[in-house]
Amino acid sequence: MSLSKNQIKLITSLQQKKYRTKHNLFIAEGTKVVNEFLNSSFKLIELFCVEAEAYSKVNNCTLISSEELKKISSLKTPNNVLALFEIPKKNKLLNEGLIVVLDDVNDPGNLGTIIRLCDWFGVDQLICSKNTVDCYNGKVVQSSMGSLTRTSIIYTELLEYLKNSELPKYAADMNGENVYKITLPKNAILVMGNEANGISKNVYSYISKTISIPRFGDLQQTESLNVATATAILLSEFKRN
Amino acid sequence: MSLSKNQIKLITSLQQKKYRTKHNLFIAEGTKVVNEFLNSSFKLIELFCVEAEAYSKVNNCTLISSEELKKISSLKTPNNVLALFEIPKKNKLLNEGLIVVLDDVNDPGNLGTIIRLCDWFGVDQLICSKNTVDCYNGKVVQSSMGSLTRTSIIYTELLEYLKNSELPKYAADMNGENVYKITLPKNAILVMGNEANGISKNVYSYISKTISIPRFGDLQQTESLNVATATAILLSEFKRN
Repeated sequence: MSLSKNQIKLITSLQQKKYRTKHNLFIAEGTKVVNEFLNSSFKLIELFCVEAEAYSKVNNCTLISSEELKKISSLKTPNNVLALFEIPKKNKLLNEGLIVVLDDVNDPGNLGTIIRLCDWFGVDQLICSKNTVDCYNGKVVQSSMGSLTRTSIIYTELLEYLKNSELPKYAADMNGENVYKITLPKNAILVMGNEANGISKNVYSYISKTISIPRFGDLQQTESLNVATATAILLSEFKRN
Repeated sequence: MSLSKNQIKLITSLQQKKYRTKHNLFIAEGTKVVNEFLNSSFKLIELFCVEAEAYSKVNNCTLISSEELKKISSLKTPNNVLALFEIPKKNKLLNEGLIVVLDDVNDPGNLGTIIRLCDWFGVDQLICSKNTVDCYNGKVVQSSMGSLTRTSIIYTELLEYLKNSELPKYAADMNGENVYKITLPKNAILVMGNEANGISKNVYSYISKTISIPRFGDLQQTESLNVATATAILLSEFKRN
């Protein structure tokens, strides 16, 4: 046994935000995702792998058995390696560029997809409300596929932030203006709301313009697009010109 | 007990494609999704609910206990109702309009999102390769949120289909032409590939034009967009003018 009971307890505790905050650590799993973090500015604390060869250049590498990996992994099919990285210091708030603001996005898969989109479209900063799911949540780390290493993310009080920013503030809203018919600026804030409730009333009061993606299918239907899908289309609109 | 052992066995067997095909039935769960199917042309075979009031107008309604619902549900938190619907007859292949073709999309969540997008953007038909995940898979039914009732879906041999269609055939491909710089026709086929392997070689030989969504973030990165996200952006491009 290479892992002590206390190590197992510490590592599995990091599946909860409370303990990630306490220890200032998060988990990355799988060859691809771990490599992305190793090749970034993130600080590795310890790496556990079932084959040491691939990590011969890595300090703090512990060889473990597949059974041990199973015990510390949160994946259904654990994939060779699990690593602990330090949660980096808070980024500085930007006041220019294209900025995405999330008002209580709850689903880790949605946040992971949005982080990948921010990386793809070169979004300058992703700002999350305090109630948005934690970006170091295991499912977010795995589904953002390394894009987390290239995206500046800040959790902050949205009302305070929006009040102080002079950028034009766009919000996705079913009743907003047809996004295909307006000219979007290069420097702007795009606010996306909660999966069930959309944008909260207080945040709404700071919005300069609401925009919508027109529906072409059966117009009687009120079903909306998923928040990650809508973010994809709106970021494409901001960047396409 | 309102449910016999044989009923429970039949219902849970429908979580597998083999038995859905054998019995020509699929499962829909939860108030919202079941209601969408009830209000569509899909034929209800039997409905099981924990509160009968909401379904007083529905024939073939069986009142069951929460414990029984748990036994037949595939959801983590079963939601009031589970219903069996008949798998409808195969649609007729269309030869005009905007048609999306999926070449072995594997992930049920991706297919569910793509079905919602086809519904939103008024795609005339969704054509799936025989190896694409089954659209009556429980996860697809739940994640497509009723859009399944409004989308014409056909599983067929792609090579045969593409060979016989005279529509221009576009395929999403990392090395394709910048989609923002070309004019897209109203009547066309858009082919999207498998999550890991993209479009297969044989399908490729029928493609008229490959198109790509340009990357604006760090251009050194080779990470691609998820297939459902890419479909969202490309359908938006086909429809925006």
